[in-house]
Amino acid sequence: MTPVKRINHIAIVVDEIEDALHFWRDALGLKVARVEEVPDQDSVVAFLSVGNMEIELVKPTSDENGIARYIKKRGPGIHHICFEVDDIKASLESLKAKSVRLINSEPVIGTSGKRFAFIHPESTYGVLVELYELPPK
Amino acid sequence: MTPVKRINHIAIVVDEIEDALHFWRDALGLKVARVEEVPDQDSVVAFLSVGNMEIELVKPTSDENGIARYIKKRGPGIHHICFEVDDIKASLESLKAKSVRLINSEPVIGTSGKRFAFIHPESTYGVLVELYELPPK
Repeated sequence: MTPVKRINHIAIVVDEIEDALHFWRDALGLKVARVEEVPDQDSVVAFLSVGNMEIELVKPTSDENGIARYIKKRGPGIHHICFEVDDIKASLESLKAKSVRLINSEPVIGTSGKRFAFIHPESTYGVLVELYELPPK
Repeated sequence: MTPVKRINHIAIVVDEIEDALHFWRDALGLKVARVEEVPDQDSVVAFLSVGNMEIELVKPTSDENGIARYIKKRGPGIHHICFEVDDIKASLESLKAKSVRLINSEPVIGTSGKRFAFIHPESTYGVLVELYELPPK
């Protein structure tokens, strides 16, 4: 598989962004880079910068989506880790060849043209892993 | 509080290091920097490099310690995120002043002279957070 370059972000699911910011921004001192509505994923996301990566606080805006169901089942906490790769299609092919269970067997096109796919926690020892291929700058 | 510099590592608890490496090393392609026995924490840790940080796969070597109990209760998965700070004593004082619940209210001296402390998930929205102050190089 093409080498993983770095971690892009760690996503934490929360039920209230402002409450969560009391710790992550006000107590821990991380800077909020931006807060965005993500209507196609029924969520609001606060992006906090740390080093060359981000912590994302994700709040579901619908009771029906996967994130809301996750919080209902497990409570707030870390949801996934996202790794950047150069060629996500090649990475997914290589993972398939190694019998890794994928949630998205083909790259999904997200906002700003990034391509992403999730790997099933069953194959990663309990961690939901996302891969990102960022568009060329 | 003194600013957080960067994430030092993400710890993932596993019940077999070799099994977990089938994904993290062999399929995802991360490089194993080293594997260490940590007798004072009854664990074995595989350190995998990614960007300027590490993923740590932690396997308990006793049925009695906190990590073994964590796996028994929740299964394998992400255990904590560790952030580097310049002055851990000042950071802990600042967190206490903001009524953040700490697991270690004073820094603990770890291997190689690093100083660490854990923040309780109750104050962080469900995430076990570790702070590190590394010794001067």
